[in-house]
Amino acid sequence: MSIKPILFENGELLLLDQRVLPVEETWLRYTDYRKVAEAIRNMVVRGAPAIGVTAAFGAALGAREIAAPNFDAFFTEFEQVCALLAATRPTAVNLFWALERMKVCAQSHRALPLAELKERLLAEALEIAEDDELINRAMGGHGAALIPDGGRVLTHCNAGALATAGYGTALGVIRAAVEAGKKVAVLADETRPWLQGARLTAWELQRDNIPVTLICDNMAGYLMSQGEIDCVIVGADRIAANGDTANKIGTYTVAVLAKEHGLPFYVAAPTSTIDLSLTSGKLIPIEERDRREVTHSGERQLAPDGVAVRNPAFDVTPARLITAIITEHGVARGDFLTQLRQLCNQGG
Amino acid sequence: MSIKPILFENGELLLLDQRVLPVEETWLRYTDYRKVAEAIRNMVVRGAPAIGVTAAFGAALGAREIAAPNFDAFFTEFEQVCALLAATRPTAVNLFWALERMKVCAQSHRALPLAELKERLLAEALEIAEDDELINRAMGGHGAALIPDGGRVLTHCNAGALATAGYGTALGVIRAAVEAGKKVAVLADETRPWLQGARLTAWELQRDNIPVTLICDNMAGYLMSQGEIDCVIVGADRIAANGDTANKIGTYTVAVLAKEHGLPFYVAAPTSTIDLSLTSGKLIPIEERDRREVTHSGERQLAPDGVAVRNPAFDVTPARLITAIITEHGVARGDFLTQLRQLCNQGG
Repeated sequence: MSIKPILFENGELLLLDQRVLPVEETWLRYTDYRKVAEAIRNMVVRGAPAIGVTAAFGAALGAREIAAPNFDAFFTEFEQVCALLAATRPTAVNLFWALERMKVCAQSHRALPLAELKERLLAEALEIAEDDELINRAMGGHGAALIPDGGRVLTHCNAGALATAGYGTALGVIRAAVEAGKKVAVLADETRPWLQGARLTAWELQRDNIPVTLICDNMAGYLMSQGEIDCVIVGADRIAANGDTANKIGTYTVAVLAKEHGLPFYVAAPTSTIDLSLTSGKLIPIEERDRREVTHSGERQLAPDGVAVRNPAFDVTPARLITAIITEHGVARGDFLTQLRQLCNQGG
Repeated sequence: MSIKPILFENGELLLLDQRVLPVEETWLRYTDYRKVAEAIRNMVVRGAPAIGVTAAFGAALGAREIAAPNFDAFFTEFEQVCALLAATRPTAVNLFWALERMKVCAQSHRALPLAELKERLLAEALEIAEDDELINRAMGGHGAALIPDGGRVLTHCNAGALATAGYGTALGVIRAAVEAGKKVAVLADETRPWLQGARLTAWELQRDNIPVTLICDNMAGYLMSQGEIDCVIVGADRIAANGDTANKIGTYTVAVLAKEHGLPFYVAAPTSTIDLSLTSGKLIPIEERDRREVTHSGERQLAPDGVAVRNPAFDVTPARLITAIITEHGVARGDFLTQLRQLCNQGG
């Protein structure tokens, strides 16, 4: 069974520290929502769905702290808790989606005594986490048919169990194909600078006995040119209404390469990743992270002192390069504008 | 003045150890050609022209050791010296070109007393090194016009002074553009797994006060999509008669991206990198290097134990993706088959 990187036990949030995998498996414990915000910012946890789930637990922990005389006073403080959690990372929309769901939950239960409301908010966070894994399994069910038997599938970054509450989005589709009896070999882009592919994707697939071969990001084009890749599947951090997809930096390059080689390029993401408020991917904010992620590997210096660095953490793949978007409600192809809206409404 | 990474002083070959740059500037000294072969294999020195120059000095050092009664006996042993030096790295043709030139030199001076012949071989190696820098400056003269004033130029790997006897091929063209008064900003792909861009290109450009910004390999596509790159220039390890170009892994991907964005893609290489014996790039042997280059950064483990790895060190960019090939004798465009042959003949 695939790993679950986010647990809630005995009133504490437990996060598997993704900064030190695969060499160490360390669980960190949180009761303070401010520390949860830091954990999101510092990438103890990462991956759009996992960030959403973690933020929901953070909001529930924050709610627990609030000493207010009535709902309105409570809600004002709760909004501040949510704002702090929201200010951690700008690109993945699941973060805002999950916090919005928590605020709606609070409003819907405004009549409850505050102690019970706080319990309800924790129950909501637990439900978001449970839903997430169910959603991923549904996505796997819809997507498995797209993975060819004997297929050699390239993935970028980690859209696996570690990026979610469990099972994974892109890797969930691969897991579902394997569970359906298909033979699948995964090629994992190492995914500089943070090496989610080398450290996380390789680790979780190896753990589940799914064959995985690690490559540097700049090798995928060569392997495609040699006929050694059959399709590409990635996750998403935010999908605009027209299908333009923000995902880990380098995804766009893989999509251009897939087009050049006539290979299908699939995105797997829950409908909570779809942001219908944005008409195009150009409107998705792209986080730039610290230069040290590029210039150092742990303590080892890789570049000369003081060199200028760019470190965008995401890029946007235009819809025209995407063969299909796999969600928990079905697969969108072609007319994303209409189909994504329909898929989102099925959730309602 | 740009650095010269290969020197010959007091009967010793000196190599700037490129494995430890930019953190350490260490010069290693060689008198034994077997150690020179190891230095090429272990990438103390790398870059097609630099490998050729180093091998020539290795051959001269090897010749010095040979105790033979006559030319034929000498030459038999000299061929073994050259074979050992040739067996270090398969892709860069300059290695074989330089060793061939040394053998031709020996044959041309077979009438000399052996002590004098050995001196002549050392003189030939010195000439190859001096020629290399002159060739790079000539290449710069031809190529500088292609670099736009105010241009933001992407380069991959290190085709700089450190990849040659001095001045560089692709970076030589950039240096020549700067010397001609143009404002040029370089974007350097870090170039996984060996990080020639981060460790070498950034270092040597910074040293020469040419603005350089370091990016991960998977960021170039994003920056192109944002209109932040104006052209691409790279070096080459071997160019087939039809213009197909083997260069550092990832070059092909950059070329596909350049095409997608309508950007010029230039290759700068001496005619000694052109292998007219190969009709197409498909025939160029591609070296696969040790998995540890991908799984570790120094002593730091980046991937789970035992994960499968691919590590091709080069890829082939088809001629159709190349705007122009800049050599010391001029610039080839379009009909590479005819033009490369003409440029090579001008050297004769």
